[in-house]
Amino acid sequence: MREVNIPLVIGWLQNRPGIVLLDQTLLPREEVILELEDIEAVAESIKALRVRGAPAIGVTAAVGLAACMTTWLQRPENEASSRAVVAEQLERWSDILFATRPTARNLGNMLDRMKSSFAAETPASEADLPVEWAAHPLARELVAEAERIRLEDILMCRGMGDAGLTLLPKSGARILTHCNTGALATAGMGTALAVIYRAFETELPLQVYACEARPVLQGARLTAWELDRAGVDVTLITDSMAGALMAEGKVDLVILGADAVCANGDVVNKIGTYALALLAREHGLPFYVAAPRSTFAPELASANDVPIEEREPDEVRTVFGTQTAPAGVNVWNPAFDRTPSELITAIVTDRGVLRPPYGPAIQKLLSEG
Amino acid sequence: MREVNIPLVIGWLQNRPGIVLLDQTLLPREEVILELEDIEAVAESIKALRVRGAPAIGVTAAVGLAACMTTWLQRPENEASSRAVVAEQLERWSDILFATRPTARNLGNMLDRMKSSFAAETPASEADLPVEWAAHPLARELVAEAERIRLEDILMCRGMGDAGLTLLPKSGARILTHCNTGALATAGMGTALAVIYRAFETELPLQVYACEARPVLQGARLTAWELDRAGVDVTLITDSMAGALMAEGKVDLVILGADAVCANGDVVNKIGTYALALLAREHGLPFYVAAPRSTFAPELASANDVPIEEREPDEVRTVFGTQTAPAGVNVWNPAFDRTPSELITAIVTDRGVLRPPYGPAIQKLLSEG
Repeated sequence: MREVNIPLVIGWLQNRPGIVLLDQTLLPREEVILELEDIEAVAESIKALRVRGAPAIGVTAAVGLAACMTTWLQRPENEASSRAVVAEQLERWSDILFATRPTARNLGNMLDRMKSSFAAETPASEADLPVEWAAHPLARELVAEAERIRLEDILMCRGMGDAGLTLLPKSGARILTHCNTGALATAGMGTALAVIYRAFETELPLQVYACEARPVLQGARLTAWELDRAGVDVTLITDSMAGALMAEGKVDLVILGADAVCANGDVVNKIGTYALALLAREHGLPFYVAAPRSTFAPELASANDVPIEEREPDEVRTVFGTQTAPAGVNVWNPAFDRTPSELITAIVTDRGVLRPPYGPAIQKLLSEG
Repeated sequence: MREVNIPLVIGWLQNRPGIVLLDQTLLPREEVILELEDIEAVAESIKALRVRGAPAIGVTAAVGLAACMTTWLQRPENEASSRAVVAEQLERWSDILFATRPTARNLGNMLDRMKSSFAAETPASEADLPVEWAAHPLARELVAEAERIRLEDILMCRGMGDAGLTLLPKSGARILTHCNTGALATAGMGTALAVIYRAFETELPLQVYACEARPVLQGARLTAWELDRAGVDVTLITDSMAGALMAEGKVDLVILGADAVCANGDVVNKIGTYALALLAREHGLPFYVAAPRSTFAPELASANDVPIEEREPDEVRTVFGTQTAPAGVNVWNPAFDRTPSELITAIVTDRGVLRPPYGPAIQKLLSEG
């Protein structure tokens, strides 16, 4: 068993109320850990994409809210506030955090969970408390709930890693991945990258190719950084090289994440995913998607039900602020694309591997609660 | 008939011996025309990629050599030199130019042609002389030959444009292209882009999508720039978007260039070409390659005979000098990929359109001389 060295992405400040957060906007050039102690700083970090990835944003909001509420509760003028007054304060700060990225489903879900747990007067068990500074009884409830959210995320990643591990040949694998689905996107080991990290831990021979993922370059900036840092053998390619890579027989399988998995198993994910799925089929390679249960959207019958967000044209016309194309030239910049379930060999979840037909498999997964 | 406004890429200085050259390294931000009057300046421009594209480099070397030889011949101490002495000087400067990009086949071919034309004492007809400053009789021979090379390149482009035009639906077309195969790569309208320019001239409704072509971004920097400047409706995408573009039914056909066409019709071209060919087939779209006869390499039986050059890893780790990936991370950076002839619907040449089976079609094309 080899140890995998994943970066600290989100955690608690130990000596005073607050959280620590890796500033991902400085990657891959600098690894800077921020210490955030007030709600404005937490909100700014989410808004400015210092933390990104749906699970990571949800956990950051939960732990940030709990830490800031602790500071608020420990002020002499608030110490004796009624639960109703505290709930109002929780609502106000939750709204501030929610406004930073209002379309991030996970963010809203985790904030709602913090509020409903507080409304339900869920007690804090001592075992759940990760820090000593949460002294006020109501702060202890909030910190304990945020910590449960953080730990569940870590376990969710681990679950996907273990499930995905069963798909890899025992002799090792050469794996192509896309975008960032790693430690940087979660509080744990990631989604698709959790499979790679678990394989690394079990000393499976691994070679990983990471697509850079233009326009925002999450593959180059984040995936290549975290795999390289962890000691995983990673090679960066541009998105245009994936076809040639497969044709040259340099890769055994593809695994990547999802922004949404529909009721029929169609996947909506980072632009470029669909082309990789077609290329994989053409070359006879398994194409795996890793997604926790929270990413499944059973209310969407198929990917055609998902509107595709078009982002700023300047993402394509520039790279890190450097102009690479004529100013003002037309751009088509869809953030995501749709991959039909027929192209997907299996879906790796935190509760095991789903195989086609996906409709019933997904129903069963979600009904097990 | 609509006029197409293509940039001046290579030409003659009018009032004194020398050439004009568009500095492509400043695109798309600035359109600067250089005036080059000595052999060191011409060599530096080729070496520093101020001009690129096989045909454009060949023409630049020919006109540059003729202009610089004119200056040399008009010096009082050289005026009365024998043809043998002049040939030695021609050889010396030809060597300087050849050394700038020794693997560029076209460059060597055009320099050889200048020397053998001079050795054969090919006369200059008045009609061939594009400038008044070539007074010395030997200079007139050299300038006339260089001008023939330049005009043949323009006609070659035009020939491809006319041939390709026959492939486009009369109702217009939505066309995907890759890398730069335009005016900027030739002395004329380009290769694949010549088809688009000819369609534009004939007022065919057109919508062009240009892949940015990472890592060197010739699509973003050059193709988007020249099409936009010419008034062609062009939309820039990242390479990762081509699959989704086809899936959404936004494109009718693909046309792009070639670095080499093998005896069996296999094509070696800019990395990303192979994936586009597979994606086109999957979506039932015609996939056309435009290549002049000088790009055919009948000595290569198939694309498997072509070694693929791997370029500097920093091309992938950076964009315009800005670091986008961890310093030192492994990179795979093939400059080209191989597209098997089965994926190619037709090959557009300066002498008409080739259809499968390509073996005999290519033999016939090249035997016609």
